[in-house]
Amino acid sequence: MQKQFLIAPGPTPVPEEARLAMARELMHHRGPVFKRLFGEVRKQLQWLFETQEEVLTLTCSGTGAFEAAIINFTRREDTLIAIGGGKFGERWGKIAGAYGMKVVTLDIPWGQTAKPEALRDLLAAHPECAMVTLSASETSTGTYHPVEELAAVVRAHGRALFAVDGITAVGVHRLPMDAWGIDVLVSGSQKAFGIPPGLGFVAANARAWERYESSNHPKYYFDLGRERTNHVQNQTAFTPAISLVVALHEVMKLMQTEGLEALIERHRLNACAAQAGVQALGCRLYPEVASYSTTAAVVPEGVDAQQVVRAMRDRYGVTIAGGQDHLASSVFRIGHIGFIDRSDMLIAISALEFALRDAGAKIEIGAGLRAVQNVYAQPVGQ
Amino acid sequence: MQKQFLIAPGPTPVPEEARLAMARELMHHRGPVFKRLFGEVRKQLQWLFETQEEVLTLTCSGTGAFEAAIINFTRREDTLIAIGGGKFGERWGKIAGAYGMKVVTLDIPWGQTAKPEALRDLLAAHPECAMVTLSASETSTGTYHPVEELAAVVRAHGRALFAVDGITAVGVHRLPMDAWGIDVLVSGSQKAFGIPPGLGFVAANARAWERYESSNHPKYYFDLGRERTNHVQNQTAFTPAISLVVALHEVMKLMQTEGLEALIERHRLNACAAQAGVQALGCRLYPEVASYSTTAAVVPEGVDAQQVVRAMRDRYGVTIAGGQDHLASSVFRIGHIGFIDRSDMLIAISALEFALRDAGAKIEIGAGLRAVQNVYAQPVGQ
Repeated sequence: MQKQFLIAPGPTPVPEEARLAMARELMHHRGPVFKRLFGEVRKQLQWLFETQEEVLTLTCSGTGAFEAAIINFTRREDTLIAIGGGKFGERWGKIAGAYGMKVVTLDIPWGQTAKPEALRDLLAAHPECAMVTLSASETSTGTYHPVEELAAVVRAHGRALFAVDGITAVGVHRLPMDAWGIDVLVSGSQKAFGIPPGLGFVAANARAWERYESSNHPKYYFDLGRERTNHVQNQTAFTPAISLVVALHEVMKLMQTEGLEALIERHRLNACAAQAGVQALGCRLYPEVASYSTTAAVVPEGVDAQQVVRAMRDRYGVTIAGGQDHLASSVFRIGHIGFIDRSDMLIAISALEFALRDAGAKIEIGAGLRAVQNVYAQPVGQ
Repeated sequence: MQKQFLIAPGPTPVPEEARLAMARELMHHRGPVFKRLFGEVRKQLQWLFETQEEVLTLTCSGTGAFEAAIINFTRREDTLIAIGGGKFGERWGKIAGAYGMKVVTLDIPWGQTAKPEALRDLLAAHPECAMVTLSASETSTGTYHPVEELAAVVRAHGRALFAVDGITAVGVHRLPMDAWGIDVLVSGSQKAFGIPPGLGFVAANARAWERYESSNHPKYYFDLGRERTNHVQNQTAFTPAISLVVALHEVMKLMQTEGLEALIERHRLNACAAQAGVQALGCRLYPEVASYSTTAAVVPEGVDAQQVVRAMRDRYGVTIAGGQDHLASSVFRIGHIGFIDRSDMLIAISALEFALRDAGAKIEIGAGLRAVQNVYAQPVGQ
């Protein structure tokens, strides 16, 4: 037999507490039990987003939530600057384009980080810019962008809102929405939350809600004003994915018990372990600055990454992710987001060693695991 | 102790097979196991929708799915006729209005059915009409509309597409999409499917897809063309609500084992039982033609429906639904959609007897249950 492990950048493993909660009979979403629970969820989400603002829970994927974030807080005739550098960063520009907005892309070679000065120049060239979008943790490349610095640049511009895709960053990196002046922050349930996909989250501050009033994109299901009106009454505008909300309540309790600092530190440590492991096996890190959510690495010369990913899954029971689009043959991506601990990193790197060996790479068996173990052997905080 | 029962028009009870499936660890939605399962789900849905067309599975509520149905198959400058007569029928007109379309409502007093000749006249007055929308089973009033006859009227018009909200009708009433010439058919997971909310379904025929090509509403998450391209490869465009898809696979197996005729007959019989039960307790049926999904009934003079609904839930453990909007004080709604059988109808009517008595109605205790029992005592098919 071969046990199966999900160690991808999302969906992520689901804690037993949440899985069993989903196996319970449904409650009605208009009854008092749900309202009480949803009231708690709203507070839990504010804690995680580090915000006083309402965090809206939508029934959709992260992409749906980000679409809502764009179309509720801009106008059709607005200019949007999409910070590129990966599949998701670029996607937010495509959404704005689909709504007829003028889209300017801050072009960044995949794997590199957004430079604050480049954004400053682009904003200076586009004083009319109404929104800047960023994927804080760009999962397609494993990159973490300097969110705080970029937020300061946007804020200095004065007019543009800063809308941040925190889909694989909220709960992974510190991303204090209010303190950093992030105007709109989005996330998704199948990432650090460690529950199945199906819920998206959007928080927006007063600056953004002011723009909502004059937004002219057509919308109904994704009308966030209607959602907010319902949320403050512990309701959703439309029938929510009840079982996922119940699961969310459970995992948020786990996260609060762990504490925000410990949660982030665990993600950092797992990221360090994955990075050390892959590098000890001759795989170069792909991004300039690695995210705590995903380790994207390049296979050694002559090895096919797709073959490695397939072998890890089919032969060794570990589902990671391949490289996206043009990176499919060269890059693999190990996820360490959500309820992942040392054991998962050992399992992932063990399978990687075997799969690399099978693909003909010259590696020393055990070298990856030793590197992983050394990371965890260091005193906490080192 | 008091057991709890969910006997509302949705969400509905979830069979154990589906609940336990949701408690399993997640599979990755880009892996071969999901693809195989999703391929089976696609066929199962075609069986239930009685169509050769692709049935798209979206991660959203039924409202999101219907919004997608409207905006993918019309143009902004189009006229849409919304058949009213209830909260949901009217909602589809509001969506089209939010997208800037010209909306004409076929006004029907709540509780009455749409008359084919009235639709014919309205279409004649609006030869430019591009889409007619209908809630087949209007859950807010418990009404079933004559879908087949209305479809024939729309088809005779020549140009208009017929988009049917089958959210509480698919799997409850026969609704053979292809045979009746329904152009677009929508449903939602928390109704006859008997799984939690979070998935919406949209099927469209060649006439509708032809319109897709020239549709000019902005959209990204709800772009059904992108979804179809992915579906035929047993994928979804964006991360789907994986655990709900796995649950869907389970309940569809249960439905196929039961068989389509038996499934519909069970719904019809439960509806008859609920109707007989409430009428034996002095509650008049609200709709002109009752749906198999929901029994909407009017409380006796001097009784407050909200008080009855609350008492049923808080005192007797049975969650039904109240009347919507202006019907809140006068109407209650018992759901018999999805995995509901005789036992549930007995439990619902028993609780109703007690709650009506508590509210001061003069009823004969046991009269409702006797009426229910008499319905089930009749030979099948009577």
